[in-house]
Amino acid sequence: MSVYEKLQSLGIDLPVPAPPVASFVPVVRAGNLVFVSGHIAKQAGKPLAGKLGADLTTEQGQAAARSVAIELLSTLNAALDLNTVKQIVKLMVLVNSAPAFTEQHLVANAASDFLCQVFGEAGKHARSAFGVAQIPFGSCVEIELIAEV
Amino acid sequence: MSVYEKLQSLGIDLPVPAPPVASFVPVVRAGNLVFVSGHIAKQAGKPLAGKLGADLTTEQGQAAARSVAIELLSTLNAALDLNTVKQIVKLMVLVNSAPAFTEQHLVANAASDFLCQVFGEAGKHARSAFGVAQIPFGSCVEIELIAEV
Amino acid sequence: MSVYEKLQSLGIDLPVPAPPVASFVPVVRAGNLVFVSGHIAKQAGKPLAGKLGADLTTEQGQAAARSVAIELLSTLNAALDLNTVKQIVKLMVLVNSAPAFTEQHLVANAASDFLCQVFGEAGKHARSAFGVAQIPFGSCVEIELIAEV
Repeated sequence: MSVYEKLQSLGIDLPVPAPPVASFVPVVRAGNLVFVSGHIAKQAGKPLAGKLGADLTTEQGQAAARSVAIELLSTLNAALDLNTVKQIVKLMVLVNSAPAFTEQHLVANAASDFLCQVFGEAGKHARSAFGVAQIPFGSCVEIELIAEV
Repeated sequence: MSVYEKLQSLGIDLPVPAPPVASFVPVVRAGNLVFVSGHIAKQAGKPLAGKLGADLTTEQGQAAARSVAIELLSTLNAALDLNTVKQIVKLMVLVNSAPAFTEQHLVANAASDFLCQVFGEAGKHARSAFGVAQIPFGSCVEIELIAEV
Repeated sequence: MSVYEKLQSLGIDLPVPAPPVASFVPVVRAGNLVFVSGHIAKQAGKPLAGKLGADLTTEQGQAAARSVAIELLSTLNAALDLNTVKQIVKLMVLVNSAPAFTEQHLVANAASDFLCQVFGEAGKHARSAFGVAQIPFGSCVEIELIAEV
């Protein structure tokens, strides 16, 4: 099954990524590595703001992380054919965290699980997940991705 | 116009980077990728300390981010000919942030804009910017860079 | 002296890494780069929790950072022959930090120094170290590593 058929079977339409608004770009390819900029969680096109452990539950953070993973694939899809992805190499998952929230890994799992659903073995990546003091626009989750093509 | 002529036209003399003081190094090349260690914001040779949203304004953070970008180029310049840079691949921009400060992207833009001024298309990079709880020496901004040569 | 002889001379037995418990993996190789997932500090198999600057001293953070570096080598060792490591390329050292703790670099030095002890010149890496709001399970230190083989 192609990646696109898999996405369709999951009921996911990749949104058209918003155009970049600053002097950085969503994707840079260097050799066989593709670096995707940090994407923040949004809801209805606006940043989904809040801190885990204060404003949002772990479950809400997981939904946000999965939605960011979909946005990352949308951005990748605008740059290349997703079937050419050889491996999702690494995720950096940033969770906007109140000082005592320690379930960043559970939030991140929602993004990791989704990528494995879509890509199978090629979706199994290295990962770092941790709690940050803030994220642009107060968003609850930001994820950066490296893929190999 | 070479990168050096461009820097001159911007009135920028690249400072001589401080020698490393620990068992890590400022630059490592692996294949065609060059990894530059996180550089912290300084003023008059000392760490420029403070948290955005508490001690420093966004404008002060932007000046700091631009100065860190200059330091990163100084370090790169000590390791290689800047005209051999094929692409600035990725920045990770860390902003020392009070809990409610959410303009990390605006701070980071000052570094991104500067690199595009200097390198043109080759300066357009992927990027993650976020707020951290602290930075060594209390510095307000730290930036890590990956380039392709 | 091989890397294994060096480890033995330091009195270090590499522990057997715990199997992964989620849909990410400890190590991904892409070309000649090996990406190792963020590893958290543990003690007696449990997360070593606490914030630097509040619950733990810099010295305790250094011991934790060194132990994470050993865990990273254990994970690398389970994936490849450590003598094939051409260069430790980059560390990202995350220190679970109270708002006023600014010695992340001193904590990180314990990991950097250890890698240079073991690998010599090949252990000299680029590095970013900074303070984060939290780490999964409340662990005090998390380190991610990139190596070249």
